Amino acid sequence: MPRGLWRGGGVMTKLIFDTDPGIDDAMALLLIDASPTLDLAGITTVFGNADVDITTRNAHYLCDRFGIAAPVRRGAEAPIASPRRPSPAHVHGENGLGDVDLAGFAAPAPDGEDAADFIIRMARAHPGEISLVAVAPLTNLALALQRAPDLPDLVAEVVLMGGAFGHGPRRGNVSPVAEANIANDPEAADLVFTAGWPVTAVGLDVTMQCVLHDASAARLAAQGGDAGAFLHAISRGYADMYRRHDGFDGCAMHDAAAVLRLSDPDLFETVSGPIRVATEGIARGQTIQRPRDQSFPPGAWDGFPAQRVCSAVAPGAVERIFLDRLLARAR
Amino acid sequence: MPRGLWRGGGVMTKLIFDTDPGIDDAMALLLIDASPTLDLAGITTVFGNADVDITTRNAHYLCDRFGIAAPVRRGAEAPIASPRRPSPAHVHGENGLGDVDLAGFAAPAPDGEDAADFIIRMARAHPGEISLVAVAPLTNLALALQRAPDLPDLVAEVVLMGGAFGHGPRRGNVSPVAEANIANDPEAADLVFTAGWPVTAVGLDVTMQCVLHDASAARLAAQGGDAGAFLHAISRGYADMYRRHDGFDGCAMHDAAAVLRLSDPDLFETVSGPIRVATEGIARGQTIQRPRDQSFPPGAWDGFPAQRVCSAVAPGAVERIFLDRLLARAR
Repeated sequence: MPRGLWRGGGVMTKLIFDTDPGIDDAMALLLIDASPTLDLAGITTVFGNADVDITTRNAHYLCDRFGIAAPVRRGAEAPIASPRRPSPAHVHGENGLGDVDLAGFAAPAPDGEDAADFIIRMARAHPGEISLVAVAPLTNLALALQRAPDLPDLVAEVVLMGGAFGHGPRRGNVSPVAEANIANDPEAADLVFTAGWPVTAVGLDVTMQCVLHDASAARLAAQGGDAGAFLHAISRGYADMYRRHDGFDGCAMHDAAAVLRLSDPDLFETVSGPIRVATEGIARGQTIQRPRDQSFPPGAWDGFPAQRVCSAVAPGAVERIFLDRLLARAR
Repeated sequence: MPRGLWRGGGVMTKLIFDTDPGIDDAMALLLIDASPTLDLAGITTVFGNADVDITTRNAHYLCDRFGIAAPVRRGAEAPIASPRRPSPAHVHGENGLGDVDLAGFAAPAPDGEDAADFIIRMARAHPGEISLVAVAPLTNLALALQRAPDLPDLVAEVVLMGGAFGHGPRRGNVSPVAEANIANDPEAADLVFTAGWPVTAVGLDVTMQCVLHDASAARLAAQGGDAGAFLHAISRGYADMYRRHDGFDGCAMHDAAAVLRLSDPDLFETVSGPIRVATEGIARGQTIQRPRDQSFPPGAWDGFPAQRVCSAVAPGAVERIFLDRLLARAR
């Protein structure tokens, strides 16, 4: 089976990007394309930052605008077992991309294959080679698990942006303990965390430390080519929100942090233990990891595989690598 | 209305100690008696570290052994709305006091008045003067609130040992997110946190930092009189547990930390915001405070009073003051 080699000579990491673009999703997608060790095998879309029709249109638009040739597959329009939460138009705009004019771009008609089936087909075609980088509600991954219970044995690893684990001052963003991607489909997330594949969660507590400062965004606009200028344009309202709500100079690079966890894992420290998702009551959507170094009475975590949670990050290096790769891509 | 004056000349703080003795409860009770600014108006007992018959017997025993004249009132034997969890005999011993021989001590027959009625009567007799220091399941306080909805206006403040709020490495002790006092009666705790009285929670994340080191316990045994020797004797197995499970040199002074929050509030930093208790699913028993500096979609915290959570402590000062007061009492 032929495998891509990156410029440094090693084997490239093949991935499917599961996404709901989304401003920081657009940043992450361009980072994937700019990463010499990553080989984008496909893009799957899902509801989340906007309706799935919008996020799918946006995925096609971004591929077109960035010159990315990967296949796009439309995924779930609603959670597996609960009603949809409202879309966060106050964060990503009504059109999911900061309400920047997309000039009447029309997405191609959907392929007959949906996101979950694409994930399953690709995993079967490349057993042990495909990593899933999921930066949206985990509905497509859960549907794929339900349709193909052998999927965990076929996938290399799952890296996801989601949850909040208490490793920083910030806990949740849609409740004091729940992060939006997980809260958008807690039942799906619980299936993903408890399946027998290796999962690494890059949670809100860590991604909120990964800031693209305004000066970096301005460099991207000036020296990052059309794609860099586009990312700058769509992220101005997003940066305004972080300035108002969080006192940031810049904006959080949530989804790009998950991409970097795959390409540059040493930027992160991790802790290990089974993870469950609260699906009931006021904690609904909370991700809870059982620490490995402590014993408890019998509980909901027993018998599930240990998964990894990013507990610390080198935020300066994240921003520098992100900027370096995007500027290098434009040269 | 006559009020006690402490040796420094100020007005003493009158308190009712709601407790389930328990080894660290015994330490806290002796600290109350040794505190020049605290005036113990009564002791109320509840299930928790052992059955309420045992904790009530122990409260009488400790008063007898320590020479404390406060009235003791037996309280709840079970949670207000859920089944009892098993008693932690592996922590406090079968007899609640480290299985040290209590020489066949028999408690006096229960008074006709129960714990909740005692709290209500005392609060009405001394409006605005009584503080409640609760270091056990919050069942008695919840029953008092149910019987006397005006109670919050009559009580000075509530200081409780309970919950885990993520302000330290340790989260829960009976689940990854739940602390035992709260998990023993989550519905009661939610009533206490959402009532219109000022509540300060000293959570597990902070009390686990308050360690009575073995050298201090040995000094207590040598120079702390009969009471100090007794505390040393009952806490040897307890210290062994902390050594095995948590790598401590010594044992955690959970309940004494709550007493010190009342007498010496400046030893602690606090954060403010409404607190709810998860009562459903895998997070049952978790205490969740909504941060004041962040906005969220409408949620379960809306409309409830801001309460305080201890977010940091000066552990060296806690141990030094505890030891100084107990040694001074013995002189």
